[in-house]
Amino acid sequence: MSGERYVIGVDFGTLSGRALVVRVSDGAECGTAEYEYPHGVLDRLLPAGGDRELPPDWALQVPSDYIAVLRHAVPRAVQEAGVDPADVIGIATDFTACTVLPVLADGTPLCELPEYRGRPHAYVKLWKHHAAQPHADRINALARERNEPWLPRYGGLISSEWEFAKGLQLLAEDPEIYQRMDRWTEAADWIIWRLSGRYFRNACTAGYKGIYQNGKYPDREFLAALNPEFADFARDKLAGPIGHLGAAAGTLTEEAAAWTGLRPGIAVAVGNVDAHVTAPAACAVEPGQMLAIMGTSTCHVMNAERLTEVPGMCGVVDGGIVHGLYGYEAGQSGVGDIFAWFASNFVPQVYRDTAERTGLTVQEYLSDQAGTAPAGAHGLIALDWESGNRSVLVDHELSGLVLGMTLATRPEEVYRALIEATAFGTRVIVETFAASGVPVTEFIAAGGLLKNEFLMQVYADVLRMPVATCASPQGPALGSAIHAAVAAGAYPDVRTAGAVMGARGSRTYLPDPETADVYDRLYAEYVWLHDYFGRGGNDVMRRLRALRKEVLK
Amino acid sequence: MSGERYVIGVDFGTLSGRALVVRVSDGAECGTAEYEYPHGVLDRLLPAGGDRELPPDWALQVPSDYIAVLRHAVPRAVQEAGVDPADVIGIATDFTACTVLPVLADGTPLCELPEYRGRPHAYVKLWKHHAAQPHADRINALARERNEPWLPRYGGLISSEWEFAKGLQLLAEDPEIYQRMDRWTEAADWIIWRLSGRYFRNACTAGYKGIYQNGKYPDREFLAALNPEFADFARDKLAGPIGHLGAAAGTLTEEAAAWTGLRPGIAVAVGNVDAHVTAPAACAVEPGQMLAIMGTSTCHVMNAERLTEVPGMCGVVDGGIVHGLYGYEAGQSGVGDIFAWFASNFVPQVYRDTAERTGLTVQEYLSDQAGTAPAGAHGLIALDWESGNRSVLVDHELSGLVLGMTLATRPEEVYRALIEATAFGTRVIVETFAASGVPVTEFIAAGGLLKNEFLMQVYADVLRMPVATCASPQGPALGSAIHAAVAAGAYPDVRTAGAVMGARGSRTYLPDPETADVYDRLYAEYVWLHDYFGRGGNDVMRRLRALRKEVLK
Repeated sequence: MSGERYVIGVDFGTLSGRALVVRVSDGAECGTAEYEYPHGVLDRLLPAGGDRELPPDWALQVPSDYIAVLRHAVPRAVQEAGVDPADVIGIATDFTACTVLPVLADGTPLCELPEYRGRPHAYVKLWKHHAAQPHADRINALARERNEPWLPRYGGLISSEWEFAKGLQLLAEDPEIYQRMDRWTEAADWIIWRLSGRYFRNACTAGYKGIYQNGKYPDREFLAALNPEFADFARDKLAGPIGHLGAAAGTLTEEAAAWTGLRPGIAVAVGNVDAHVTAPAACAVEPGQMLAIMGTSTCHVMNAERLTEVPGMCGVVDGGIVHGLYGYEAGQSGVGDIFAWFASNFVPQVYRDTAERTGLTVQEYLSDQAGTAPAGAHGLIALDWESGNRSVLVDHELSGLVLGMTLATRPEEVYRALIEATAFGTRVIVETFAASGVPVTEFIAAGGLLKNEFLMQVYADVLRMPVATCASPQGPALGSAIHAAVAAGAYPDVRTAGAVMGARGSRTYLPDPETADVYDRLYAEYVWLHDYFGRGGNDVMRRLRALRKEVLK
Repeated sequence: MSGERYVIGVDFGTLSGRALVVRVSDGAECGTAEYEYPHGVLDRLLPAGGDRELPPDWALQVPSDYIAVLRHAVPRAVQEAGVDPADVIGIATDFTACTVLPVLADGTPLCELPEYRGRPHAYVKLWKHHAAQPHADRINALARERNEPWLPRYGGLISSEWEFAKGLQLLAEDPEIYQRMDRWTEAADWIIWRLSGRYFRNACTAGYKGIYQNGKYPDREFLAALNPEFADFARDKLAGPIGHLGAAAGTLTEEAAAWTGLRPGIAVAVGNVDAHVTAPAACAVEPGQMLAIMGTSTCHVMNAERLTEVPGMCGVVDGGIVHGLYGYEAGQSGVGDIFAWFASNFVPQVYRDTAERTGLTVQEYLSDQAGTAPAGAHGLIALDWESGNRSVLVDHELSGLVLGMTLATRPEEVYRALIEATAFGTRVIVETFAASGVPVTEFIAAGGLLKNEFLMQVYADVLRMPVATCASPQGPALGSAIHAAVAAGAYPDVRTAGAVMGARGSRTYLPDPETADVYDRLYAEYVWLHDYFGRGGNDVMRRLRALRKEVLK
């Protein structure tokens, strides 16, 4: 017996779940295992089959897939770590959000009732289920009209991805399921319910996705105005005890112990969200430390001691990242997916061939080629709105722009301009936070784009700030493990645990002053175009989108 | 003996020359042959070799290559036609312009003197020699300052491609050659000199490229202000008798008869320019008939009875297209080359493979794919300025723009947006002519892009006008042959000859009203962006280009 204790973090992603075994004393990652959801994302058919295709923009999941992760990935990770399950003192999870499902009072998902297996609305609605936009539009219009005090807490806009819009869609399209469900629960909380037998709404999703502010939800009058039958949605379907992050929801049930091979009775932490849970793993929980989780999209989370309204943020939630601080969230809806779209659709074969010969991916090769020129040499500027703009314009009708091409412009130059555009978009967010009284004093990056060193250097040069990195490539799972350690009582709070168990990467990208000077000039061009096309100077992007819908209908 | 008579048109292009044998009575094309210039375009080294590379933006040619076309292509074309050379009554030529060379008083090119074979400035400067821009800038600045009356005849700007800018460069960089030359002659006129033994400046190049207006060149005082040694440039190096288009310069010399296999003494027409000479071949010489010669770039020529100033045109010249009418010229500096640039650099292999499997070129396949969707469905708008803007903005510091991309945007959609952008650019020119009092009443297209039926339909829909076509794929050579017939006295003038010998294609593209309605809306967006980026709303394109030069120097 070594005397060492361990915790498990489980990260539930879009396509799979990953379990990570972490040593409590120092955060060392001892073993990991991944398990793909057998049903993946349902965007065409239900598992029950049938010939009715799901409508466009739907994205469902099957809750038993999450349990399968606990049964397969957790034991395998423990085995890989070579750890005695008896030394595991706690487990915690993080989830995509807002990912919601209708359940009975005992937590049974409605899609598991035989009579509802063929009903799409009985399943989990994944975060990227985007079919509730008309309902979000109504929420926003009414909230603006009534000047609801919670609206500025979300940068002025409630997303179609969140609990209320998806709930309204459910009521409108399948009222029987709506009436039958006892709770409209985040998957982040449902999985903890299954592990511990106790239902808590974690402060993070309740705040960011559930419009829970200052101890209450949107009031009955507001909800009734949306739909009389929706009047008691918050009280009857949503409300539940709030669990603050890092607290124990309960202890592992016999059933869940059997699934995972862990001992019953160990601590189970309150649920959490993948982006937010990463902050302690990256040592980015102190006020002013902005953590950017950079992947297909980028999520920015930052704590501050004061509550303020940042225009165009995703939200500010008391205890939304760590208990005791105001957690701010912002985002860029398209980042890595823009680069992937360009690399898939606009790069000729000779680049693929050369990349392959040199053992690189196409994007690695494009980055290498792009990096041989000084900043500004391509003569290009781009707007990074191929997937709309989440912060600070909060406008998904916006679209992309590339400007400055000549007959000599090459793919790697456009690729670089797109990377730069996302960096400029990040700088707009950083500057908006500063202008709102919550300055970003440190910038830390995590996520899949960390692999692209050229990109990271562009961000440092554009931001004129050092860009520190999260040491772990499993930031969310490590973050969950840190929460498990706190829930198990090994540390007094998440900040303390993160300082010991989290770690920065050895590489910090420092801005090059000369390049940063050039980027200052390009950034000024970006801001000019950003404001012109994004703030009403020329609404051509909205008109083009409207025309598109019109001619295609 | 059939009694039929024939004429020869020779079209001198950028890389080759083409001879066409045409029946005088009806314009039937009886035989053709092409001959590639042995030296092509010199943009790196002189044929004399040596290790000194030419500077950037230089483009030279070798005059003996033009003679080689006469020696090879003309006899082959006659042979192919099966025509008795005794039945050929005239020959005429057209040339790229402004393509100029320094010669002695007897027409000997300076580059053929042994002592000058190693001197770049002794060679032909091809139209696309772009190294005289600083000299053009000085000409324009001084002309604006002095309010020279001829400046508005050129839309307010003299091009670096033209006779004065290239002459100033020659004087500045190789004064010995400048002093030694007796004439600074257009290749269009030099070739006629070699065929007929007589030197005429054709009214077309003298007007459009030589600033010859109202019977005179820019005055001595103006030229002296540019450079005292340039004071007598027009009088000493340029001036010569003006030959109007369709007139005979003289008759075929014994020497030229020997080269071509034709009979000495047949008519040789005054020289001409490839774009302008095409008008009678396309039956597009009447006032209000705009002919667009659409290839890598597009040249628009149109006659009118009145003289007016069209903002941003290339020029207006009395008798510049046909004798007795004012000839207007405008242009788009990038058209087919933009599509080629996109197809070469931004289209993935799967498109090439599919195109190849179906027996199409990549651009044909892109056009087919693009054409399956209704107008406006791509949600895109582009500016066609990858090669700058010739008309009506006359600004080569401008650059390209594509706006409206989403993660679903495909290469064929961007390709279509680029095609549409060039059509919108044409509509701007057409509308500017109308607003200046010289309305376009008919639109006729010629040139290589005629092959792209999808593109032609887009032009008809965007212009809301029928787009007629030139029947001959050899428009310039046929146009030259028409001029040869007039010079030989077979017809009284070019208008009459063109009406018999020229022909419209059987296909006329008619606008589809519904599509045209959609394009009206997209055109409004184009104009908004055109004016914003092209007329000072946001000079970002100029600043990006300046930054580019700065960081690359």
